[in-house]
Amino acid sequence: MYKFLITGLFLISSIAYSQKEDSLFIRNIYDEVLTNGQCYNNLEYLCKEIGARLSGSPEAALAVNWGEQTLKDLGLDKVYKQEVTVPVWQRGTRERASIINSSIVGNMSLSIKALGGSVGTAPKGITAEVVVVESLAELSQRPESDFTGKIILFNRPMDAKLIDTFSAYGGCVDQRWAGAKEAVKYGAVAVLVRSLTHNTDRHAHTGVMDYGEFGQKIPAAAVSTDDANAINQVVKKEGKCTVNISLGCTQLPDAISYNVIGEIIGSEKPDSVIIIGGHLDSWDVGEGAHDDGAGIVHCIEAMRLIKNSGYKPRFTIRCVLFMNEENGVRGGKKYAADAATKKEYQYFALESDRGGFTPRGFSIDATLIEDVYTIQSWSDLLSPYGLHLYKEGHAGVDIKPLKEKQDTITMCGFIPDSQRYFDYHHSDKDVFETVNQRELELGAASIASLIYLVDKYGWESR
Amino acid sequence: MYKFLITGLFLISSIAYSQKEDSLFIRNIYDEVLTNGQCYNNLEYLCKEIGARLSGSPEAALAVNWGEQTLKDLGLDKVYKQEVTVPVWQRGTRERASIINSSIVGNMSLSIKALGGSVGTAPKGITAEVVVVESLAELSQRPESDFTGKIILFNRPMDAKLIDTFSAYGGCVDQRWAGAKEAVKYGAVAVLVRSLTHNTDRHAHTGVMDYGEFGQKIPAAAVSTDDANAINQVVKKEGKCTVNISLGCTQLPDAISYNVIGEIIGSEKPDSVIIIGGHLDSWDVGEGAHDDGAGIVHCIEAMRLIKNSGYKPRFTIRCVLFMNEENGVRGGKKYAADAATKKEYQYFALESDRGGFTPRGFSIDATLIEDVYTIQSWSDLLSPYGLHLYKEGHAGVDIKPLKEKQDTITMCGFIPDSQRYFDYHHSDKDVFETVNQRELELGAASIASLIYLVDKYGWESR
Repeated sequence: MYKFLITGLFLISSIAYSQKEDSLFIRNIYDEVLTNGQCYNNLEYLCKEIGARLSGSPEAALAVNWGEQTLKDLGLDKVYKQEVTVPVWQRGTRERASIINSSIVGNMSLSIKALGGSVGTAPKGITAEVVVVESLAELSQRPESDFTGKIILFNRPMDAKLIDTFSAYGGCVDQRWAGAKEAVKYGAVAVLVRSLTHNTDRHAHTGVMDYGEFGQKIPAAAVSTDDANAINQVVKKEGKCTVNISLGCTQLPDAISYNVIGEIIGSEKPDSVIIIGGHLDSWDVGEGAHDDGAGIVHCIEAMRLIKNSGYKPRFTIRCVLFMNEENGVRGGKKYAADAATKKEYQYFALESDRGGFTPRGFSIDATLIEDVYTIQSWSDLLSPYGLHLYKEGHAGVDIKPLKEKQDTITMCGFIPDSQRYFDYHHSDKDVFETVNQRELELGAASIASLIYLVDKYGWESR
Repeated sequence: MYKFLITGLFLISSIAYSQKEDSLFIRNIYDEVLTNGQCYNNLEYLCKEIGARLSGSPEAALAVNWGEQTLKDLGLDKVYKQEVTVPVWQRGTRERASIINSSIVGNMSLSIKALGGSVGTAPKGITAEVVVVESLAELSQRPESDFTGKIILFNRPMDAKLIDTFSAYGGCVDQRWAGAKEAVKYGAVAVLVRSLTHNTDRHAHTGVMDYGEFGQKIPAAAVSTDDANAINQVVKKEGKCTVNISLGCTQLPDAISYNVIGEIIGSEKPDSVIIIGGHLDSWDVGEGAHDDGAGIVHCIEAMRLIKNSGYKPRFTIRCVLFMNEENGVRGGKKYAADAATKKEYQYFALESDRGGFTPRGFSIDATLIEDVYTIQSWSDLLSPYGLHLYKEGHAGVDIKPLKEKQDTITMCGFIPDSQRYFDYHHSDKDVFETVNQRELELGAASIASLIYLVDKYGWESR
């Protein structure tokens, strides 16, 4: 009994010591980023010197070079590129729409952005009446004659009541993704989609769409919320609204681009990999500051913080700057496919792709519930830094293909506060000035701290 | 045993029912503010139509009228003003400073703002060498001859490492509050104080200072962080730095102003009062958007949400728009002194004076620890809305005098995210455009929800 008591006390004091050591380690990570952080300056460079960087563009190539050099400058064990074949879509300069001959608004210019992947129109554009619907389902519920030869405006707004704005986005994004391929089945000639933002303003928010494998391709564009409301008003008051849309966008042949990868090789299990990543490409509007410049500089900074802390990771810590998240996820798919052919175990992956806002926690995608509990058990160490969320949920678009190849991988999504995200997302408003330095820095430290705990304590048996 | 079991089950199901009812009530509060909120428009009016509103200014008088009318428009049971005598300090138009004859920077203009309450200078100003110190304590640690006839620059920066930025502010504000009255004891002729912000830029951040009851009054001004760094560099490189400061500010006789009060009279305990408040005055720079326009519209909106919910409060819910928090707390002191003379029980008070950012929780100031536990027990109902902090701490400057009069009052401070607050605080950057609509609205709902729970369940015995 006496001996047991001693052993027990030793165990307790050893756990307490370890907790204190971890607490100090994490404190040092935050101190470093808040007094000597480099992520904000890195983001400024990426946004202001390179700017928007759609896959296949010259700017995306510049971003690849910048990412590689920035990782090399950290003195990591290995920095390299992984070839990815990417789609090349160009917006072109011709992009306009207007309401024609309304008795209320006359001829009124509309603020639009072609959806990524859309076909263009002839220079004179398409002129047709607009039919306003609120859902994809409405197409099959009304007579087909309602839609034949018409432009369909998908006008369901994001639900302001949802506290997590990504849930509101998820509740509307089907209109943007599948609007054109569904509308064409009912004889529509073009599609407008209400911009996915909570704001009522004149900024159009683009994003990816899909034509499916078969069927005719009709042009599709996002329209600003202000203008979607205007069209809706004209239809209601005049019984009809005629719109002209002219798009100069075009799909070019695929091109070669790259994922950029940097790693610290594990001291105990070099072939088991902890991945942190974001996506290097962005839409071709704004500067891709929150989406996903923030995630890129979060991950680069987390590598710097771990490297400079002196901690020797047991597993290989690999930072992946994925290419082509926005319109194809080719980088994420390529990484996962290559990983599956190697003698590597994909141990853990984290993605940051929800902006550079103040950290709230992590979403967890784990096949084994024990891994969820393990991560939740670290909340005492992380909650002093504002990290309170540890719920199960989607981790990230780029890392999702990893799970399809190996379902024992545990994944997290970094969750910053979501209230402002859709003010900027995929629009010309997503610029460096909307990112707060401290909020961004705290994100990098949050990621580095979680990675440290995963490396030190995570699910030992695998 | 059987009977006991039935009673037990009844109790459990009754608690479960009540939880569900509360959960739905709170959900409705959030739904209303996110779809039909008025606080953002109210804030726009206060910032753009009235603007900065220092106590005793014509704008402060406009804000009093606006506050009274806005509360009346809610159809509350009672709306009235409470007279408060306020100090009247005017900045004037003459406010400039420059480095003189530096071999590095030549004559260089400095961005300054006189501290509120400072005396002015003669038009030609004060010209003297600057001595840079990092603390009040340093004054007594160095020979008095170091300071005689000099301008002292208090240059200790806010500690970037502190996650709660208010702690960093608290660690530096002594320089602004007491710098002049301490410096004069060592023969200094004027004081500059490094602006209390994390940013390095050219915006000076003003704030209140104190001369104490005795002693000579020397001029005091905040200087931008960029310029504080410049002075420090000149001193280090040239061995000295001469600065000229000219201030046209002046203290006028006290004037009459008002707290503005609106209330819903309690159905069971009309003489027990739940207070929610912010402060109607602001500094005379920027628009007082976060400080404390946000708190004012939070509280007005919380009254609207409670009133329109159909819930009949048991206690009197009283919204107090306090006057003169920034340079005297005369409104807070007057309210507390008047309350002490009435047959009223001050049951609970909440203040919102930390900006309109995304909600994180509440700080709790309670004499009885049981009240802290009671509030913490509501976290399951409130955490779905991002409210995770329920720690003991300072509640608010305006409501603090209430506790001095009656120490059984329990008080909360509303805690939004603090990372961006000192980017704007007391500077020309504190404008409406820096407030996000959803973040602001969530704050109002957070306050209304807490007040509902306090009214329905709070510390029954008193």
